[in-house]
Amino acid sequence: MESPKKLRIALDAMGGDYAPGREIAGAIEAFQASREQVDIILVGDENAIRQQLAIQKAEHLPFAIAHASQVITMVDSPTAALKQKKDSSLAVAMRLHKEGNADACVSAGNTGAVLSAATLILGRIKNVSRPTIGTFIPAENGTCLLLDAGANVDCRAQQLYEFAVMGSLYVQLLKKKDRPTVALLNVGEEKTKGTEAVLEAQKMLSASALHFIGNVEGNDILKSKADVVVCDGFVGNAVLKFGESMPAFLKSRLKRFSSRGLLNKLAVGITVWPLKASLRDMDPNEEGGVPVLGVNGVTIIGHGNSTEKGIKNMILRAAEVARSQINQKIEAAVAEKGL
Amino acid sequence: MESPKKLRIALDAMGGDYAPGREIAGAIEAFQASREQVDIILVGDENAIRQQLAIQKAEHLPFAIAHASQVITMVDSPTAALKQKKDSSLAVAMRLHKEGNADACVSAGNTGAVLSAATLILGRIKNVSRPTIGTFIPAENGTCLLLDAGANVDCRAQQLYEFAVMGSLYVQLLKKKDRPTVALLNVGEEKTKGTEAVLEAQKMLSASALHFIGNVEGNDILKSKADVVVCDGFVGNAVLKFGESMPAFLKSRLKRFSSRGLLNKLAVGITVWPLKASLRDMDPNEEGGVPVLGVNGVTIIGHGNSTEKGIKNMILRAAEVARSQINQKIEAAVAEKGL
Repeated sequence: MESPKKLRIALDAMGGDYAPGREIAGAIEAFQASREQVDIILVGDENAIRQQLAIQKAEHLPFAIAHASQVITMVDSPTAALKQKKDSSLAVAMRLHKEGNADACVSAGNTGAVLSAATLILGRIKNVSRPTIGTFIPAENGTCLLLDAGANVDCRAQQLYEFAVMGSLYVQLLKKKDRPTVALLNVGEEKTKGTEAVLEAQKMLSASALHFIGNVEGNDILKSKADVVVCDGFVGNAVLKFGESMPAFLKSRLKRFSSRGLLNKLAVGITVWPLKASLRDMDPNEEGGVPVLGVNGVTIIGHGNSTEKGIKNMILRAAEVARSQINQKIEAAVAEKGL
Repeated sequence: MESPKKLRIALDAMGGDYAPGREIAGAIEAFQASREQVDIILVGDENAIRQQLAIQKAEHLPFAIAHASQVITMVDSPTAALKQKKDSSLAVAMRLHKEGNADACVSAGNTGAVLSAATLILGRIKNVSRPTIGTFIPAENGTCLLLDAGANVDCRAQQLYEFAVMGSLYVQLLKKKDRPTVALLNVGEEKTKGTEAVLEAQKMLSASALHFIGNVEGNDILKSKADVVVCDGFVGNAVLKFGESMPAFLKSRLKRFSSRGLLNKLAVGITVWPLKASLRDMDPNEEGGVPVLGVNGVTIIGHGNSTEKGIKNMILRAAEVARSQINQKIEAAVAEKGL
């Protein structure tokens, strides 16, 4: 068997909250895990990167370094920062990809800036009106791809339709799920419910070749009623962030219970084990970032607080996405109304 | 001290999933808990009600019965059912209230139908463009009133503003919280984020006399960042239902963990106690329903599967709301832009 083509991944080494340390550590893990099938380009301040490589005893590894003198921070305004910081690690990494010197770009930096950079530098796929990012929500049976997760707060039917097409292809190609089920998030299962955009999208999806199962409600996401759940970014963002706050809420409640006596404390001590084990896959680092769908290229965005494992999984995921050739399929599918 | 005026509550005895048994049981509990300060009118099929009173050995209690020959079911279309079933227990109860023969109406029936009945029969409060229902979400410090929770899927800024005014007054009067904090649910804390309606509502709320703290995100709800969180009904409904599905999700995960060996099973057995105790207030029966805000009258809506305790708390809450004279205050506050 022919070994797959070696892929080059440009990693924004300055993006995350713990950059460049975690980024370098993640790159090392990805290099090892990929059995050297991935070439990683570390993008950012060369001195800082070399220093980290020395600290992590990884100077001998065959990483390329692309110097970038600036960093877009988490508090920067995405569009302003992209204009003002032309030599940011993010912009340099994205341009490496655009110019064909990398097959994908990976960043755990400012989400808005990564999305903007991908859209502005790589450009949109033909026929796609708005790029989107989704989120993987761990559900009862596997994960559910909820999209849009905040990139587009106001959406027309056409955009919801495109999200469905792109999400379905992503789950099919990357999660190896044949004919993923697609649903519209709505306030009820009845066909007459929802906003105008949702009602119109419902018609478009019903007429498409997607495996559209109709409307689902907020409580159907965790029940795994659909592999892909489509909504506008305002709704998706609210649901995603609400869900992300559940573990901390649970923890604070258990802490309060624990403070009410020794027996309570003991019980909570035991509780931690099954809870952590049961909810392990709620750690976004397992998924390793989410793709920007709808741009001419491969971009994976991760949480600012991604762990080494998170960064590693982002890099490996980027390589997989690049191999999947999803973008050609998106272009064709959106044009053919999903057929 | 003068004892407060005895209030008359019309209870839709046929509304909930376990009607009329649970409704009657809840009425008995409410009667006892109110120290006879509440007169309850049981509305529905007289035979069925008398039979239940006999079964529950409560024939001697001073309940009034108002016969209604029809029932609006959970699967009925709200508006169609209200037109076709003029003698439904819900419509009869609401008319008793409208005509001054009851001070409030309580129902655990079809939420859409209760909302429609309240709006059509009682009418809107002057200056309120759309009645709303909210939901109480148990948060780290007390509950958060999230509204709208699904009544209005598409909202203009004026409506979001009105929700904020009404929600703030409700929390102030019924939860005895001085100057409740009010926030807009948004995709970021920055003032420039959000849809047009949200951006405009932000300006209106900033200029109002409400204790407006700006934008919050989905993960701020459980953190108790604000007492009242305002959003359109599409978003509120998605968040509410997603949250409601968390306990079942947790249960299914723990069950899976438990099936992996005796030690796991034992640990989960212990886990159930702290978890249940910690999350007790997530039971909506503790709150006892939510008010329809913005109508000329007092209507409390409960879950279809409300327990006896839930029905009891709905009745007691209805009496409290009626005593609070909230509607006069809403009319004045909305007119004065919250001042």
